[in-house]
Amino acid sequence: MESEIEADLQPSPGDPPLAAPVRLHWSPKSPFVRKVAIVIDECALGDRIARHRTVVERLRPNIEYMRHNPAGTIPALELADGTKLYDSAVICEYLLAFAGNGALLPATGPMRFEVLRRQADADLFLDAVLLWRQERIRPEDRQSDQFHDAYRTKARVALDAMEAEVECWPNRLDLGQIATGSALSYLDLRFPDLGWRAGRDRLSQWAARFENRESAKANRLALD
Amino acid sequence: MESEIEADLQPSPGDPPLAAPVRLHWSPKSPFVRKVAIVIDECALGDRIARHRTVVERLRPNIEYMRHNPAGTIPALELADGTKLYDSAVICEYLLAFAGNGALLPATGPMRFEVLRRQADADLFLDAVLLWRQERIRPEDRQSDQFHDAYRTKARVALDAMEAEVECWPNRLDLGQIATGSALSYLDLRFPDLGWRAGRDRLSQWAARFENRESAKANRLALD
Repeated sequence: MESEIEADLQPSPGDPPLAAPVRLHWSPKSPFVRKVAIVIDECALGDRIARHRTVVERLRPNIEYMRHNPAGTIPALELADGTKLYDSAVICEYLLAFAGNGALLPATGPMRFEVLRRQADADLFLDAVLLWRQERIRPEDRQSDQFHDAYRTKARVALDAMEAEVECWPNRLDLGQIATGSALSYLDLRFPDLGWRAGRDRLSQWAARFENRESAKANRLALD
Repeated sequence: MESEIEADLQPSPGDPPLAAPVRLHWSPKSPFVRKVAIVIDECALGDRIARHRTVVERLRPNIEYMRHNPAGTIPALELADGTKLYDSAVICEYLLAFAGNGALLPATGPMRFEVLRRQADADLFLDAVLLWRQERIRPEDRQSDQFHDAYRTKARVALDAMEAEVECWPNRLDLGQIATGSALSYLDLRFPDLGWRAGRDRLSQWAARFENRESAKANRLALD
């Protein structure tokens, strides 16, 4: 079954080969970077891709770095031919195509879109909580109660949806699950007060299993 | 050449067919929706996909809608089998795979990632200016000069990068260009004071040609 799926990912005969990924713009604090780093380890590409610590802050544009990635976001992946890729979803797809790994993301068919939709759930959730954090670190007199209320609701609804869905997720790891695990780990780093595990036993148990994988253990989020 | 590319997008023999797209959660104000609507028209799928006006506001979560899309974002695409897809990049890929349109996004190879990277440039730029607008509509005494300065710089760098790149873009339309055109049209709607065309003649001329396409004319951004 897996070898059939992997066969789908072979490039068309007319395609030039994909250039090797060589450098990852990286930070230990970014959950989007963590998603990519776990994919790299699951594809056994870690030895081939150097990590370059790149500091980006939302309110302090890193102009030098933006010469390579105009949006100034991490992760970004450099290829041997000089190409830079982003965002994290594009990078993950590239790594999986390069490695011929069709298990984490099928190349075609409805299951591909099921996995991509689940990745989008996790990534959109993460976009929201990353914004929420920006609001939290503003000077207190410039924060907005409406903002906090709205984002608390958004987080609750999204987490409840994950709890309702988690039993239907395949036992085998896929890109959607890697994205979900990375998003949840960000809550542990920056929103411990949210207590996301309370009342969400299945999601908590799933996350514990996910965090027990070698690739997850090797890429914990950390402040430095 | 095009028929060769399209052949790549045929599903693998073992895949179940992709369910038909039937309903788009839509607003005339959203540039991400506009990107999807242009793709729908370029694929001649407009007659098959109903448009459902869905109101989402960042600070007023639409709980009813979030039952279907936990992130509460538009666009979302409903399929005949009940599946809901998002975000806009996933929707565009689905529509192109369903329609067998490999001209807008090659199915494999380096050119696929060139187009996806350009779509990411435009989408990340748009994420930034959408956030900037959120800051602009805050009560004035809660706005942050640092925020405005940072986002003005981000917009300038990203637009300058597009200006530098535009001559290398293929003459033939692709998904990266549709994303770029949609992002620029949002500046015309919400940031006319930015004067993005000044000093960016090639990008301005490219945008004028883009806006002259039937699919672009049929899907103008509008306040209502």
